[in-house]
Amino acid sequence: MAFSERVDRLKSSLIREILAAAQRPEVMSFAGGLPAEAMLPKVEWSQMPSTMGQYGMSEGEPGLREAIAAEARALGIACSADQVLIVSGSQQTLDLASKLFIDRGTQVLLEAPTYLAALQAFQLFGAECLAVPQEAEGPSLVALRHSLEHHRPAFAYLIPTFQNPSAVRYSDNKRDAVAALLDEFNVTLIEDEPYRELVFDEGDAKPIVSRMRHASWIYTGTISKTLLPGLRVGYLIATPDLFPYLLRLKQSADLHTNRIGQWQAQQWLGSDQYRSHLNELRHFYRLRRDAMQAALAEHFGDLAEWQLPQGGLFFWLQLKQQVDTRTLLKPALGQNVAFMPGEPFFINPDENLGYLRLNFSHVSPDRLAEGIRRLASVVRDASMIEAA
Amino acid sequence: MAFSERVDRLKSSLIREILAAAQRPEVMSFAGGLPAEAMLPKVEWSQMPSTMGQYGMSEGEPGLREAIAAEARALGIACSADQVLIVSGSQQTLDLASKLFIDRGTQVLLEAPTYLAALQAFQLFGAECLAVPQEAEGPSLVALRHSLEHHRPAFAYLIPTFQNPSAVRYSDNKRDAVAALLDEFNVTLIEDEPYRELVFDEGDAKPIVSRMRHASWIYTGTISKTLLPGLRVGYLIATPDLFPYLLRLKQSADLHTNRIGQWQAQQWLGSDQYRSHLNELRHFYRLRRDAMQAALAEHFGDLAEWQLPQGGLFFWLQLKQQVDTRTLLKPALGQNVAFMPGEPFFINPDENLGYLRLNFSHVSPDRLAEGIRRLASVVRDASMIEAA
Repeated sequence: MAFSERVDRLKSSLIREILAAAQRPEVMSFAGGLPAEAMLPKVEWSQMPSTMGQYGMSEGEPGLREAIAAEARALGIACSADQVLIVSGSQQTLDLASKLFIDRGTQVLLEAPTYLAALQAFQLFGAECLAVPQEAEGPSLVALRHSLEHHRPAFAYLIPTFQNPSAVRYSDNKRDAVAALLDEFNVTLIEDEPYRELVFDEGDAKPIVSRMRHASWIYTGTISKTLLPGLRVGYLIATPDLFPYLLRLKQSADLHTNRIGQWQAQQWLGSDQYRSHLNELRHFYRLRRDAMQAALAEHFGDLAEWQLPQGGLFFWLQLKQQVDTRTLLKPALGQNVAFMPGEPFFINPDENLGYLRLNFSHVSPDRLAEGIRRLASVVRDASMIEAA
Repeated sequence: MAFSERVDRLKSSLIREILAAAQRPEVMSFAGGLPAEAMLPKVEWSQMPSTMGQYGMSEGEPGLREAIAAEARALGIACSADQVLIVSGSQQTLDLASKLFIDRGTQVLLEAPTYLAALQAFQLFGAECLAVPQEAEGPSLVALRHSLEHHRPAFAYLIPTFQNPSAVRYSDNKRDAVAALLDEFNVTLIEDEPYRELVFDEGDAKPIVSRMRHASWIYTGTISKTLLPGLRVGYLIATPDLFPYLLRLKQSADLHTNRIGQWQAQQWLGSDQYRSHLNELRHFYRLRRDAMQAALAEHFGDLAEWQLPQGGLFFWLQLKQQVDTRTLLKPALGQNVAFMPGEPFFINPDENLGYLRLNFSHVSPDRLAEGIRRLASVVRDASMIEAA
């Protein structure tokens, strides 16, 4: 069978395999990024017009595009509804952007660590990925400038607000500095913001795209983390030089995003009901984050270092001993605990050992401590073997 | 801006522009392939479980996959639910197959004419398209054998049942012969069947993939033509050697297809309600087809030749005078009539002048005759200028 050369780069997805194993009801899974079932809002369908069953426009539903543009303007992003493209979950933005920018060998600039599925999508299309190390308040500016001076990346892909997996929220200063650097070198920014609304602690930070003056950008978001992922409704907002291409690529990919999900999303966005749902969601997840922080402090204090995430869905642990955490998966699953090894979030996994990503939204607080205790014992056993 | 080299091949979509012009309510549009609004079934959402709001599996909903596999087996396709992948409309099958097979210069084999959006998707990925002329009962077998003897296409893409745009239904003999040829040369078949259920006249023809013995295949279908296109639910069934790759490509494209549409599709597939809906649909479209046939006989008898379509949504006219039908669009729209020029359905549009595709499902029979009369006068004017 003669496949395309890109298929050689199609990795078997570690996430898929872990999530499959984590489906067993007895497994306490810190692996995925799923919303808590209990926080999926009840939705009403009885008012949906029958016209939503017909083919729709590739751009998306006009009213939804307006609502998204209005929210973006409230964040300081100068844009109109004409720049909004509804996509089939923000994962599709990565596919469309890959098609728009990436040939084999095209350089793209990413945080290290970065979102695993973005890395896989860009590599599938043949990108040469350049890493900028993530620090406590955002990417290293020295490394970013150095990379921009020595390379010509087609775009930088950044997740500035509660980054997946590091949970970092870029400071205001970092945001300004990143915007200025991308403008200076005229490099397109893809700013991915699935977690912006899942904020637990004070602090606000305008998107980087709202601080840029010259360079092109794509800003992408989703309702999957705040409303219902099963609707598969996300969006991108793009500068007018990029939009027409992304629209045609969208049409070629799947004609348009399902209209029933778009209609449902439109019922919520900007409504009082949505604001109140978001408040409940933040409260609910804050409690789970605090429960995990307490459990980690008890069981991982001597094993790892981490920052308290101020939003999002994850803790990012750096083990004190540099264990390949992929080797911990099997013993952990043997204890009915699942987690995400940190290595696959890096361009060079084997040079970045000893990180774990732990989701805190899925396991209930009363079971969580036991899961963390078991995981700590798996890590401790491995560290002892390593040290021996 | 440095885009990928594939963007140079991203055509501005003539369909998009025509459909946009055809949206004006005064326009009688024979251009699109939209189901009649009146035939969109009423659907119920009140019983949908709230779990459909959560993330789902990339493969699709287990029950829907089972139902689709059962229908396929009833058509003679030996397959299990494990081979079924739910996609975001069957357009996505074209995107996934392109990613799986096509590098720049990869040869693929198509009918001439063929489905415009398939041609565009394959060309976007850099395919070199080989054409096999369509005859009244299917592709020319001489041309097909010749092409297979002289080239090594990665796959053949065929629409054997009420082809878009030609309306041809392959005969049983052609189906057997095509299956045998693809087996002989071990060339993968992508069989696209959006119109199978829209059959107006007697005659049944098992899918080509059910007649193949060795070569790999992808069979793809959709609920868009029979239920609700706005759900964006289609499917593919693939041989086990192809399935794992298509699944990973699906995951990278959009994680999974929206679950609410999948749930709704599952309520219909295989039900008595669906069978009765399909019967109504066939009756309704048969009346419209007959109305268009009568109008064409009255106004186009001296201008064009065509076959009566036995299913599907289109008439395919060959004008007696070889006019570039793209030049007729503007005068037709001036008369508030829209149609699809035939040229873009060919790999070499400029060498295939003088075809029109006319949809008969959208315009009501009482307005249809007037639209056809106006279109005939536009063609007649152009032919006179050409002849002068």
